[in-house]
Amino acid sequence: MNKTITDVAGVYASSIASGIKAEGLDLVYIFVPEAVAAAGVFTKNAFCAPCIIHTRSVINEGKCKAVIINSGNANAVTGESGVRNVAKTATIAAELLGLQPDQVAISSTGIIGKQLPMDIVEAGLHTLLAEPRHRDGGQAATGIMTTDTCSKTCFYEDGDLQVAGIAKGSGMIAPNMATMLGFIVTNVSVSQDFLQAALLEAVDKTFNMISVDTDTSTSDMVLCFASGAVPLDETNVDQVDSFKRLLRNCCQDLAIQIVRDGEGASRLIAVQVHNAQTESEAKRIALSVVNSPLVKTAIHGADPNWGRILMAVGKVEGTLVQPELVDVRFQDTQVLIAGAPAEFDRKSLAEQMRVDTVSITVDLHLGEASATAWGCDLTKGYIDINTCYN
Amino acid sequence: MNKTITDVAGVYASSIASGIKAEGLDLVYIFVPEAVAAAGVFTKNAFCAPCIIHTRSVINEGKCKAVIINSGNANAVTGESGVRNVAKTATIAAELLGLQPDQVAISSTGIIGKQLPMDIVEAGLHTLLAEPRHRDGGQAATGIMTTDTCSKTCFYEDGDLQVAGIAKGSGMIAPNMATMLGFIVTNVSVSQDFLQAALLEAVDKTFNMISVDTDTSTSDMVLCFASGAVPLDETNVDQVDSFKRLLRNCCQDLAIQIVRDGEGASRLIAVQVHNAQTESEAKRIALSVVNSPLVKTAIHGADPNWGRILMAVGKVEGTLVQPELVDVRFQDTQVLIAGAPAEFDRKSLAEQMRVDTVSITVDLHLGEASATAWGCDLTKGYIDINTCYN
Repeated sequence: MNKTITDVAGVYASSIASGIKAEGLDLVYIFVPEAVAAAGVFTKNAFCAPCIIHTRSVINEGKCKAVIINSGNANAVTGESGVRNVAKTATIAAELLGLQPDQVAISSTGIIGKQLPMDIVEAGLHTLLAEPRHRDGGQAATGIMTTDTCSKTCFYEDGDLQVAGIAKGSGMIAPNMATMLGFIVTNVSVSQDFLQAALLEAVDKTFNMISVDTDTSTSDMVLCFASGAVPLDETNVDQVDSFKRLLRNCCQDLAIQIVRDGEGASRLIAVQVHNAQTESEAKRIALSVVNSPLVKTAIHGADPNWGRILMAVGKVEGTLVQPELVDVRFQDTQVLIAGAPAEFDRKSLAEQMRVDTVSITVDLHLGEASATAWGCDLTKGYIDINTCYN
Repeated sequence: MNKTITDVAGVYASSIASGIKAEGLDLVYIFVPEAVAAAGVFTKNAFCAPCIIHTRSVINEGKCKAVIINSGNANAVTGESGVRNVAKTATIAAELLGLQPDQVAISSTGIIGKQLPMDIVEAGLHTLLAEPRHRDGGQAATGIMTTDTCSKTCFYEDGDLQVAGIAKGSGMIAPNMATMLGFIVTNVSVSQDFLQAALLEAVDKTFNMISVDTDTSTSDMVLCFASGAVPLDETNVDQVDSFKRLLRNCCQDLAIQIVRDGEGASRLIAVQVHNAQTESEAKRIALSVVNSPLVKTAIHGADPNWGRILMAVGKVEGTLVQPELVDVRFQDTQVLIAGAPAEFDRKSLAEQMRVDTVSITVDLHLGEASATAWGCDLTKGYIDINTCYN
C-alpha cells in the first residue's frame, strides 16, 4: 500500500457513501487537530462557489484544523440557500469535531445549479464524524473523485520532514462544470504566513502550469495543513529549501496525475521553455504550446510538427521572441535550430513519440528564465466525454 | 452567378494552375490599376512569413495596386532564400503589370518550411499576367483555397458605393500551419489614412472576433484596395457611415463564411455579450465563451449547458462581472436570470439548438458596451483533420 496523507503524523481522514451520489464514497473529512497553520489557494473564476468564499475566510482567520469535502454536488449557482448550506455544514461538522465553524473549511465538487440535499449531508456528517480519528487517506482520495478514472495520492519525505497529498480533477466535468482539488498535509511546525507563501510558490509552478482544456472551474482549491510535529527553522536556508522541495514535488506529482487522467487523454505533454527573458514570458509561452489544439492533436498523432510549435510560441503577445534564435526539440531530437528546420528522421522520431509522455523543449536564447507546463493530447475521447449528446 | 470582387469597377482578377500544388488553381492576381489607396492588417505572430514583411512595407509606401497570391506553399520558416523569393516574385509581377516592385503585395499560404519552386512561380506569373484584365473574381476565390471546402466571396452595394471581397481559411491547416486571408475591394475614392483606419475598425469587429481553434498563423492578412471610381467625402458623416457599414458587412460575411468552414465544424456559434463596462471587456468575454472547448463540445451535442457558459464568462481575468446580475440565453430561451437558473424545457430547447447557427447571449448588466464573437463547435472531424496519424 502506498503511503498517503494519513501516514503524516497528526493527520486523520476518511470517507463514507452518504447518498449525495447515487453510489460510492461522497463525503470526506481531513482532520488535523493540532494544526499550527493552514494555507489555501483558490479559483479566480468570478463565479466562485459559496464554499470558496467560506473557506477563503476560514484560511484567513488562521485557525483552520479540518476540511469537509463532498463530491456529487458542487453547490454552485445555488444563491442564498447555497451560502446557508455551507454555513450549516461547517456548524454541524465543527460541533462534531469540537471546533468552531470558522475552523472548518468546506469544499464541494460535482453538478452545479442544484441545492445540496441537507438532510443527507447532516445525517452523513454524524456517521462520518462519529469517531474522527481514522487513518483512511486512501478512502479520502477516492471520496473526492467525480469523473476521475483513478484516485490521486502521493507521499514525500526527507529526513524528518513529510509532505503528502490527495487530489482530484480530470478536466471539466459533465454534465456541467467541475473542479480541481488538492489537499496537502505536512508534519512541520511553521507560521501561517510562511506556509501560505510556500504553498503559493509551489502551486504557481505546478497546479497553475497544468491544463487539460483551458477551462477553469468555480470551485478549484488547494489547501495545505501543517500538523506541527517537527519544528522547522524558517531562517535556516537548508531546512526551508528541503521543505519547499518536498512541497513542490508533492504538488507537481498530484498535478501530473490530474493531467494524465485528463478527459480522453492518451499522452502527457511536458513543455519546457528555456532561456526566456522572464519567468512570466517562459510560463506564458509554455502554456500557449501546451494549450494549442493543433499541438494537442499533433501529439495525439505522434507527429513531430514543429510548425505548430512555432505558431503557438509566436502567437503569445508581448514577448521579445526572435524567430532566428529559436531551437525546438521533440524528446531528444532537435527539429529546429536557430529558427531553421533541422534534418531528422521523421519516421523514427514519430516512433519515439508513440509513448506515455512526450516532451517538447523550446529554447528562446533570449535570457535565463525557464518554465515547464504539462498538458495532454486532444482525442475523440474528449469529444465523447464532453458532448453529452442530447 | 453571385457578384464578386471583379464586379467592382476597376478591379481585375484571375487564377491559374501553375503547378505549385499537385493540382488545381494555385496562382492568383488581383489588379486595381487606378487604385487610389490600399490598406492592410497583418498577423501579430512573431514568426511572420517574409510575404508579411514585404506586404506591410508595400502598404506603408502607399502606392500598392496589385497583389499576387499563391496557395500550396506558405514560404514561411524559409530563411534568407524565402525573403529573396518574395522580392523576386514582386519584381517579376511588377514588370508584367507595368508597376514597381513596391507596388505589388505578395501573399502565400500552404505548407511551411519548404522553399517556393521559383521556376514554376516565374513561368506561372508569365502565363497568369500575360493579359491581366480578367474579371474572374470567382476563380481568384478558388485559387487562394487550401483545406477550405468551399470558396468564400461576397458583394455589397448601397447606391453608388460597392464593397466586395474574397477570403480563405478553415482553421489551421495540415500538415503544418495555415492562414486566414481576406482581399477586399471597393470603388470609392478615399485617402490611404482613411481606408487604413476604416479597415482596422472593420477587421477588429469581424475577422478578429472569429475563432476556430484559438491558433493564429504566421501569414494572416487582410488587404483592401480602393479603385477610386466614386468620390467619397470623408467629412460627410452619412457617406462615411454608409461606406463603413458596407465594409463591415463585407468583412463579417467573409469572417462567418470562414468559421462555417471551420475544420470539422457542424454548427456556427454566435456569442453576443451585452451591457459590459467596456467594449474590450465585452470582446474578451465573448471570445472566452466561443473558444471554450467545453462550450464548443456542449453546442456540438445541442446541450443548453449554462454552467459552461458561466465558467467561460467567469474565467476571464480583470473583469468586474457580478454573478448575481448575469442573464444567459440560448437562441431565444432564457436559461439563467440574475445569476440563478431559470425554468425552461430542456428537451425542447435542445431541439431548437440542433440547427446551423446557435446563438448564445450573455447580459452582464454592468454598462452599455457590447460585442459579438463567432466560432464553431468542436467535433471528431477536427481531431481527424488535425491528427494526421503517423
